[in-house]
Amino acid sequence: MNTSSAILRFICPDRPGLVSKLSTWVSSNQGNIRHADHHTDERAGLFLSRIEWDLEGFQLRRDDINYSIQKVAKVLAGTAKLNFSDELPKVAIFVSKQSHCLLDLLWRVESGELQMEVPLIISNHQDLKRIADQFNVEFKYVPVVNKEISEKIIMKHLSDYNIEIIVLAKYMQIISANFLDKFSDIINIHHSFLPAFKGAKPYHQAWERGVKLIGATAHYVSEDLDNGPIIEQTIEQISHRDNVDDLIRKGRDTERIALARALRLHLCRQVIVYEGRTVVFA
Amino acid sequence: MNTSSAILRFICPDRPGLVSKLSTWVSSNQGNIRHADHHTDERAGLFLSRIEWDLEGFQLRRDDINYSIQKVAKVLAGTAKLNFSDELPKVAIFVSKQSHCLLDLLWRVESGELQMEVPLIISNHQDLKRIADQFNVEFKYVPVVNKEISEKIIMKHLSDYNIEIIVLAKYMQIISANFLDKFSDIINIHHSFLPAFKGAKPYHQAWERGVKLIGATAHYVSEDLDNGPIIEQTIEQISHRDNVDDLIRKGRDTERIALARALRLHLCRQVIVYEGRTVVFA
Amino acid sequence: MNTSSAILRFICPDRPGLVSKLSTWVSSNQGNIRHADHHTDERAGLFLSRIEWDLEGFQLRRDDINYSIQKVAKVLAGTAKLNFSDELPKVAIFVSKQSHCLLDLLWRVESGELQMEVPLIISNHQDLKRIADQFNVEFKYVPVVNKEISEKIIMKHLSDYNIEIIVLAKYMQIISANFLDKFSDIINIHHSFLPAFKGAKPYHQAWERGVKLIGATAHYVSEDLDNGPIIEQTIEQISHRDNVDDLIRKGRDTERIALARALRLHLCRQVIVYEGRTVVFA
Amino acid sequence: MNTSSAILRFICPDRPGLVSKLSTWVSSNQGNIRHADHHTDERAGLFLSRIEWDLEGFQLRRDDINYSIQKVAKVLAGTAKLNFSDELPKVAIFVSKQSHCLLDLLWRVESGELQMEVPLIISNHQDLKRIADQFNVEFKYVPVVNKEISEKIIMKHLSDYNIEIIVLAKYMQIISANFLDKFSDIINIHHSFLPAFKGAKPYHQAWERGVKLIGATAHYVSEDLDNGPIIEQTIEQISHRDNVDDLIRKGRDTERIALARALRLHLCRQVIVYEGRTVVFA
Repeated sequence: MNTSSAILRFICPDRPGLVSKLSTWVSSNQGNIRHADHHTDERAGLFLSRIEWDLEGFQLRRDDINYSIQKVAKVLAGTAKLNFSDELPKVAIFVSKQSHCLLDLLWRVESGELQMEVPLIISNHQDLKRIADQFNVEFKYVPVVNKEISEKIIMKHLSDYNIEIIVLAKYMQIISANFLDKFSDIINIHHSFLPAFKGAKPYHQAWERGVKLIGATAHYVSEDLDNGPIIEQTIEQISHRDNVDDLIRKGRDTERIALARALRLHLCRQVIVYEGRTVVFA
Repeated sequence: MNTSSAILRFICPDRPGLVSKLSTWVSSNQGNIRHADHHTDERAGLFLSRIEWDLEGFQLRRDDINYSIQKVAKVLAGTAKLNFSDELPKVAIFVSKQSHCLLDLLWRVESGELQMEVPLIISNHQDLKRIADQFNVEFKYVPVVNKEISEKIIMKHLSDYNIEIIVLAKYMQIISANFLDKFSDIINIHHSFLPAFKGAKPYHQAWERGVKLIGATAHYVSEDLDNGPIIEQTIEQISHRDNVDDLIRKGRDTERIALARALRLHLCRQVIVYEGRTVVFA
Repeated sequence: MNTSSAILRFICPDRPGLVSKLSTWVSSNQGNIRHADHHTDERAGLFLSRIEWDLEGFQLRRDDINYSIQKVAKVLAGTAKLNFSDELPKVAIFVSKQSHCLLDLLWRVESGELQMEVPLIISNHQDLKRIADQFNVEFKYVPVVNKEISEKIIMKHLSDYNIEIIVLAKYMQIISANFLDKFSDIINIHHSFLPAFKGAKPYHQAWERGVKLIGATAHYVSEDLDNGPIIEQTIEQISHRDNVDDLIRKGRDTERIALARALRLHLCRQVIVYEGRTVVFA
Repeated sequence: MNTSSAILRFICPDRPGLVSKLSTWVSSNQGNIRHADHHTDERAGLFLSRIEWDLEGFQLRRDDINYSIQKVAKVLAGTAKLNFSDELPKVAIFVSKQSHCLLDLLWRVESGELQMEVPLIISNHQDLKRIADQFNVEFKYVPVVNKEISEKIIMKHLSDYNIEIIVLAKYMQIISANFLDKFSDIINIHHSFLPAFKGAKPYHQAWERGVKLIGATAHYVSEDLDNGPIIEQTIEQISHRDNVDDLIRKGRDTERIALARALRLHLCRQVIVYEGRTVVFA
């Protein structure tokens, strides 16, 4: 049960025989499939698949698996991503002043819920350094005076620590298009059920509008602010008794849950992104 | 338990002693309070209160209660609304082609969940006449060629049937400002968690955006379309498996629930509207 | 999209190559897979699969498909169930005095949400005959004086109408073991989140216990009362304000939703039952 | 808004005039009411009330308020509890080996969400001492060899630290009746939606039963195990994909939320306990 597995995420134009082709590729190499999920987006004409199989007994060596599956992808005019369940991706957490998401993520890493390594925390404020210290994580204070310069500094840190994934855990800065060109695996938590209350101060907006539900949205970051592919959304009930401070307080819980769930789905390679949206094989 | 009660909804500028003043007014007339709910909106500087007491044993006759409470209201520079739990308000349901909300409401009336009378259904289509017939409700077909004319016809029907409350149960027409001036108690069901996906085809918009939650919003109708005071919001989880038709299907359930709950709250006089928002004493 | 499909549900002991075997059987017969879901229960050592593919273009005639797949099942020591998406199963709805689930189901059939035919309603009371009449469904009044005799009468009706599925939509009678031996596809709605509040009057029990959530459970009926395989569970929040009557009222909504969802999952053949539990490929 | 307030919780036999009596007592002493909530339990024949008013401008000194309200209580044959919003109750958190609830509570104290002081953590294991150290809280290791002796030691610690409230944050020990006689304000988190899955290993029981929802229940501890008055219940959806470990993982989130909410309600004096149940003025 805890042995390692290979995880394939595959997208290609839809046509008959694809499940058979992929699963037979696995079984012909003596792979035992643990999970196989498929989805056809009829509008887009796409077939999307995630297959996970035991590495134990699999005939191909790790290095050869990718080569082999890319050949299959080429034939089917598709794209294949391969990961292994025992990878421990290096993740940088970006924060500003609020601690709740950061603490929650670090605790989940410690408890084994999130299989990842956090060697680096980046912040435009110094407030949360003490938490970084508590958990023995390097904390880099990068104030944003000039975005171009600060992003260069950040990029250098990411490179130094071999960061593969960025989590914006209440990082109150906009990521530039230039940065996004160079680094794509970025997950953000937005404190509203998007597309409601885009932009700044969503809880204030929510109170003004008099809604009866508030929410949180975890999504991949795209150039079009607050419009990236959504991974997870959660909500919380509110009432007239709740003022803006109550919304902020209640929102913290739903933010933490949405972000943690989304990140876990990402780390378990259960998410496929395509055409501005996601398939989540949960 | 099933004896009749009086229900007071009261708004006035906040100041000390208001709960005492109102509850003492009740008890000095020998009223036994069943429910007393209060809220202070500190930003608006308003005190909002709902008090319900037994009519049995109350010293004032029904006709005199309103006179007496309006005097209290005047002293406190407030507004008082008085209702009785045994009233059976006459409600007109407006529909277009979709039957789910209409059927749901009629069933809830029949079962005693919604204490109201439905003497009139108005529609811009003829499709749902058979349901009106099933439940022995008058069905008026008012096609909308010229909105001004059709609204005049509708207004005449409302007057003929002494309608006090209108429910837009998937009525796919915009109510004019002129109409709203003359008739104010109108509840609408919008098929999204407002303010997300205002306007037409919210489920199509939701699918396009790739959200993971859809919702429904029951609100009072105001001139500013989809911006009226919200009474109730409900949501439903969706996944990549759901196409637009699935969203529409799943949405029907959440629409029915949101509308029925909002209407019940309205009929039980548990909602106070002020400054574009609601207090819901649920 | 609306063309017909074949749906296979398959259970067999787990071993490598099963996804490949089944999907290759489909594709080698020129079938285009729409959905393919698999689950491995490691404790039970079982592989469970649901595959749905287009009938258009499929090389085997309908009559031959089952023969062919049963051969595959035999080789794998498994069991295969085959259905077609354009089947319209004949369903009997059993009721007592409460109408909400019955009405809800009949409306969903009418609206196309539940793809089934309801030729027969059976009840131990006469109260709901009028609803049967409204929807032009045969209503059989079978009072329960002697369970053995009444079940014999019921069995005769089921046979006369070629009933394939029974839905207990608030039928306040226990089905005998003998009956269950002869008829197995029976779905019941229980008005609590099982296993809490088994047996009679669950809302009264819930009020007594002072819970803050009530629920409903749709499950297949088994000899061991209230212990059948669970398909769907839903809940509703309650507060100290709610007395037993409020619980009953609020419960009706959650009962309707749980039962309707479970029945739809059953009709779409998305449920596989094994060892007293279900896999739900939703 | 942040000025101090007095909070009265009052229970007495129901009779007319009680809201007036209590609110007039407040206003005659120049108190400005912020919140006033009342509930009548008709079955029990009890009136339950919570009134919160500004201390600023109130004519009675803190020491005199209690004396004055107890006189009112005596006249009405009721019981009155008085608290002040600026109290910082001393809370002891009891844990065993699991850290999630403890960490969550300590973070919420630090962030100002839970207005309380945690001078003491007690555990029958040594595992969580490092967390106590991180947050500079005294950690007392009290292994349970002989319950009578260990409870005596615990009682001594509680006394030394002037503990007013105990939170059992996954403390896997049963509290004796004797202990409960001496210390009553104890909140426990049970990892199921009670009354389902009482006793040991509820997640294992839940998996065995094949439920589609798991839950958590925060309740006051009573002699009758798992039957204490419920404050808050939360649930989480699960599917056939989830094994027992997944249930435990998902359960941690719902446990944390239920416990934190319940404790906040308790600290804000929003809960009234009577006859084995609670009124929660949320």
